Amino acid sequence: MLRRVRIVLVGPLYGGNVGSICRAMKNMGLSDLAIAAPRPRLDEEELRNMAVHAGDIYDRRREAPALAEAVADCRLVAGTTARAGLYREHALTPRALAPRLLEAAADGPVALVFGPEDRGLTNEELQPCTQVVQIPSHPDYLSLNLAQAVMVCCYELFLAAGEFAPRVERSPEAPSATREKMFELWGRMMLEIGFSKEDKLDHMMLGLRRAWSRAPLSDADARILMGLARQTLWVAAQYRKLKR
Amino acid sequence: MLRRVRIVLVGPLYGGNVGSICRAMKNMGLSDLAIAAPRPRLDEEELRNMAVHAGDIYDRRREAPALAEAVADCRLVAGTTARAGLYREHALTPRALAPRLLEAAADGPVALVFGPEDRGLTNEELQPCTQVVQIPSHPDYLSLNLAQAVMVCCYELFLAAGEFAPRVERSPEAPSATREKMFELWGRMMLEIGFSKEDKLDHMMLGLRRAWSRAPLSDADARILMGLARQTLWVAAQYRKLKR
Repeated sequence: MLRRVRIVLVGPLYGGNVGSICRAMKNMGLSDLAIAAPRPRLDEEELRNMAVHAGDIYDRRREAPALAEAVADCRLVAGTTARAGLYREHALTPRALAPRLLEAAADGPVALVFGPEDRGLTNEELQPCTQVVQIPSHPDYLSLNLAQAVMVCCYELFLAAGEFAPRVERSPEAPSATREKMFELWGRMMLEIGFSKEDKLDHMMLGLRRAWSRAPLSDADARILMGLARQTLWVAAQYRKLKR
Repeated sequence: MLRRVRIVLVGPLYGGNVGSICRAMKNMGLSDLAIAAPRPRLDEEELRNMAVHAGDIYDRRREAPALAEAVADCRLVAGTTARAGLYREHALTPRALAPRLLEAAADGPVALVFGPEDRGLTNEELQPCTQVVQIPSHPDYLSLNLAQAVMVCCYELFLAAGEFAPRVERSPEAPSATREKMFELWGRMMLEIGFSKEDKLDHMMLGLRRAWSRAPLSDADARILMGLARQTLWVAAQYRKLKR
């Protein structure tokens, strides 16, 4: 469905932004770029510099004389705006919009439209938009850089598409028997090195158990900690032998 | 809590990125920027151009010779990485990290660390990090531009801080009585202009009711639609008078 989401830029001014947008799109699994009302002189060197390995998205872009043509075949058309005002109320956040856009994409292409850097979308340009999108930002500085605005929207679409799963710890959480064995070794170690007396040991172990239970303890973690205790026990035994 | 989240850049190469980062931070309500191991020649003109109205964040930055000093007073320290590998497993997404970072910020400053553009964070630089963060991205192009990576993290923090509420429609959803009055007017209109016969009207009204029930219909919407029907009824009445 991500392939059916068209990013439409209306008259972008800076090649660097367009390049950054190509990269952001590719980072987030999108590929359909349209430029409506393109300017005659877009700095293409800057564009290629910022696109890095995503220049192919620019090469395969659509161009259209005006917004209406760029979205003519699109079903849901969402226009982004930072400004408030009549016709700009009832804005959706990118997070709320993303699943709706992907749902509509099941029937055909959909569009997410961004205005030029200096003025955003005009009321006329918002007319073909069935939804208005407002990217969350702080009142101290509401207006995002164009490429940053596109990234936030593409990122939300990518997550909504559900294709991403974060890397997981390869070592599973240690089972209770391993944890207990580890604590038993550590208890013996604390006695052997003279860090705890027999009658204080339970109390001290409670502290250690708490510290190692705040987060998952993996098999690998437990093995390291047991190895450390065993080696310390060995050193303590050698020391006792020599001292005799 | 957002004011206690420090963005730490390790040896950034490009002034433009640092400027974009200042803007992204201000857009998302953050203000504490640190640069560890700064390069001798950062293009400050490019930086100011990209920062636009967020140059004050750069002016108030901390500088430190190395990462350890930049995060010495920080509690939770999260390092971002795109590469997989030993010590980089069990990564959190920015969305999962954001609430934890804000929770830890209740006790003091916390840090989110980003490596240089060309190589990211080294294993050594990941050592003071208590968490590893992986920004979701597509296998076709995993590596985000530095400023885009910072934006995604700051955006998630801003949303997690819960300070943002999207603009809401000022006109509340129309009450049932208004909707029914509107449909009654439309029914009369469809008869008067000869668009529907009396015996087909109920069926046709079901279609119209369905179309106007797919989404909320506001008081303002209903008023416009009633005005339109009344005016059409007036025109139809004038036409009938003249025809006589």
